[in-house]
Amino acid sequence: MKFGGTSVADLERIARVGRHVAAEVAAGKKVAVVVSAMSGKTNELVAWTDGAGPAAMGLPPSDDEYDTVVASGEQVTAGLLAMTLRNMGLNARSWLGWQVPIYTDEAHGRARIDEIPGEKLLKAMDSGEIAVIAGFQGVTRDGRISTLGRGGSDTSAVAIAAAVGGACDIYTDVDGVYTTDPRIESKARKLERVSYEEMLEMASLGAKVLQTRSVELAMAQRVPVRVLSSLVEPGTAPGQGTIVCDEEEIMEKRIVSGVAYSRDEAKISLFGLPDHPGVSAQIFSRLADANVNVDMIVQSRARSTDSANMEFTVGKRDAGRAVEIMQGAKAEIGFSEIAVNEDVAKVSVIGVGMRSHAGVAKTMFTALGEKGVNIQVISTSEIKISVLIDAAYTELAVRALHAAYGLDQL
Amino acid sequence: MKFGGTSVADLERIARVGRHVAAEVAAGKKVAVVVSAMSGKTNELVAWTDGAGPAAMGLPPSDDEYDTVVASGEQVTAGLLAMTLRNMGLNARSWLGWQVPIYTDEAHGRARIDEIPGEKLLKAMDSGEIAVIAGFQGVTRDGRISTLGRGGSDTSAVAIAAAVGGACDIYTDVDGVYTTDPRIESKARKLERVSYEEMLEMASLGAKVLQTRSVELAMAQRVPVRVLSSLVEPGTAPGQGTIVCDEEEIMEKRIVSGVAYSRDEAKISLFGLPDHPGVSAQIFSRLADANVNVDMIVQSRARSTDSANMEFTVGKRDAGRAVEIMQGAKAEIGFSEIAVNEDVAKVSVIGVGMRSHAGVAKTMFTALGEKGVNIQVISTSEIKISVLIDAAYTELAVRALHAAYGLDQL
Repeated sequence: MKFGGTSVADLERIARVGRHVAAEVAAGKKVAVVVSAMSGKTNELVAWTDGAGPAAMGLPPSDDEYDTVVASGEQVTAGLLAMTLRNMGLNARSWLGWQVPIYTDEAHGRARIDEIPGEKLLKAMDSGEIAVIAGFQGVTRDGRISTLGRGGSDTSAVAIAAAVGGACDIYTDVDGVYTTDPRIESKARKLERVSYEEMLEMASLGAKVLQTRSVELAMAQRVPVRVLSSLVEPGTAPGQGTIVCDEEEIMEKRIVSGVAYSRDEAKISLFGLPDHPGVSAQIFSRLADANVNVDMIVQSRARSTDSANMEFTVGKRDAGRAVEIMQGAKAEIGFSEIAVNEDVAKVSVIGVGMRSHAGVAKTMFTALGEKGVNIQVISTSEIKISVLIDAAYTELAVRALHAAYGLDQL
Repeated sequence: MKFGGTSVADLERIARVGRHVAAEVAAGKKVAVVVSAMSGKTNELVAWTDGAGPAAMGLPPSDDEYDTVVASGEQVTAGLLAMTLRNMGLNARSWLGWQVPIYTDEAHGRARIDEIPGEKLLKAMDSGEIAVIAGFQGVTRDGRISTLGRGGSDTSAVAIAAAVGGACDIYTDVDGVYTTDPRIESKARKLERVSYEEMLEMASLGAKVLQTRSVELAMAQRVPVRVLSSLVEPGTAPGQGTIVCDEEEIMEKRIVSGVAYSRDEAKISLFGLPDHPGVSAQIFSRLADANVNVDMIVQSRARSTDSANMEFTVGKRDAGRAVEIMQGAKAEIGFSEIAVNEDVAKVSVIGVGMRSHAGVAKTMFTALGEKGVNIQVISTSEIKISVLIDAAYTELAVRALHAAYGLDQL
């Protein structure tokens, strides 16, 4: 069971988490619970590190000391939940990353879990003790505290489930995975099941319900994941949330399972590039060296000249840096002009059914065309199609696509 | 170097602590720094544990989970100070109790340090790294976080100094140990040196500058301790603080070194006790079983009867419980009446010179008598005399004694 920051925001909510845990124990299950920091706490801690640490010197903000400070938030919640469970008459104890241990690499601030020896946890759980585990944190082989990056508690939970051979229930502030964001389309419907592949695309493409890495890990380790609401009392939920599982376990076949969107994009355009091989390597190797992730790319030939144009998208917070890098290499790359547009959004349709169905793209482009939405860049994979559009059309596009694929009538 | 909660209350003060550390490093010293939680943080954490933990069930508030939660405060400060030092171009890292390791017993919430293997710390310090150590916390042999009780960071600092063979500078919000509380007597003077024995009595008798256990430990391990101010910029302090050391190292001999007071006392009186052997054992074994510490005791024979009266003092917060225990055993003990008086204060004079000087008590009683201060209970040791008086006379008594022993003319 994993509970995020809003689910443990105060003692009253932690008590409700305790009741959810008690219900699982009463159902005869052995339980490990992974918790995030109380909401707001991580921000407070990060603000202090910004004032004291490398960020105050204009350096990358994450290091071993950043992790030592920031990991304390989950430590507090783990202790408080263990206390709460004991007061309910249950047997429980907290486990910090170094106590489990949850071994990670040394990439502080965005560490990856390499190994979780599950023996100690399993022994404690077999003896009837509920294991309350601080999420988001681990320990390096040389005994320093590490953290997994924002949203890392989902990854902790899936990794713990894999280590003890269990299933993973992610309790959050929504009651499942929806066909699209219900705040934009009130006809959005909860999915009973969604495949790992689809969930992974949804997470990458902007649906915030699960962290991308946690889905990758669940898929790789075949950990059954369920998303359900922590905001209701146990036993009162109308459904069972959404199960994330193998494609084969999904009976009801759909061509498209969901529409995702992200406003966290910026489009950078380079004009008047020399039209010869190697120019894209020039551009993208420079960005890769600076750790700027590039998402969508389109290259086009200018009509009347023999020069080319290149457009690509990066995360909004990387846009300034990407422009600087390009400006700094203007002579070597040889472009004549650069433009950046932050008023863009990426809208995507996702579905494993695309593999065997033609016409999915046509439906998308037709639906957007009918609403007068201009498509700036397109990118596709086997199970998704993404388009970059003017951000002002985001809601309109999401609703049009939701209807076009019949998602409101599932 | 040890810095308490008010010295690290915010990032600005942590930066000043950094400058104090840098000054020591510049003077060619190898430095370990022990820090408390930012002031107010421990209270916030304790309040949460009160709401979630055993205290909410009326049980003793400290356990392993309490320690896990509360120790996070020092973890944050240690990380922030290590970051601050690095930003100043110094080499530093934080050490948590389990990383050093600072091994303690399993008495959670009031654990005692049993052993600090100093090798890892020494190796780091020898390589030129400043060790920033989270105070107040340790780890049990089975890997749970423990805490040393309120004020425990002083003890951490002395224990670390002993482990690495160093001296211990306690930076606090006063610039040394005074002959009495300067808020009561403006003529109070800072002592250049004070013996371990005197400091121990002063700490036990109400002077709040050092925690009693830290002085015991410094005395046992012969760790040189200095008390000085963190609230000034390094290099600007007018003096060198107060050195706590062996009696033999103090040149200037004094009969009395200080006047201490405590308002944290309550006097309990039992009247009409049977005057036979064993009655005091009846009383005090019951209080000891309930962990109530008794301080001063006086027994007297009632004039006109063959019954006796007994008066004793306990800490104010234990008074209610002590009365309950006595009431519950009224028949067995056989007293006729019980009274409790919380309007009392204990005033003490302390000095190693008492060992070889007669007349110290006489001076005390005369000085108090001249001011019309009535003495309710007296207790003495080799190097102190304490009297219990009406709390309203506290300041008057402190000033009278300070003058009577010539402390304002040192």
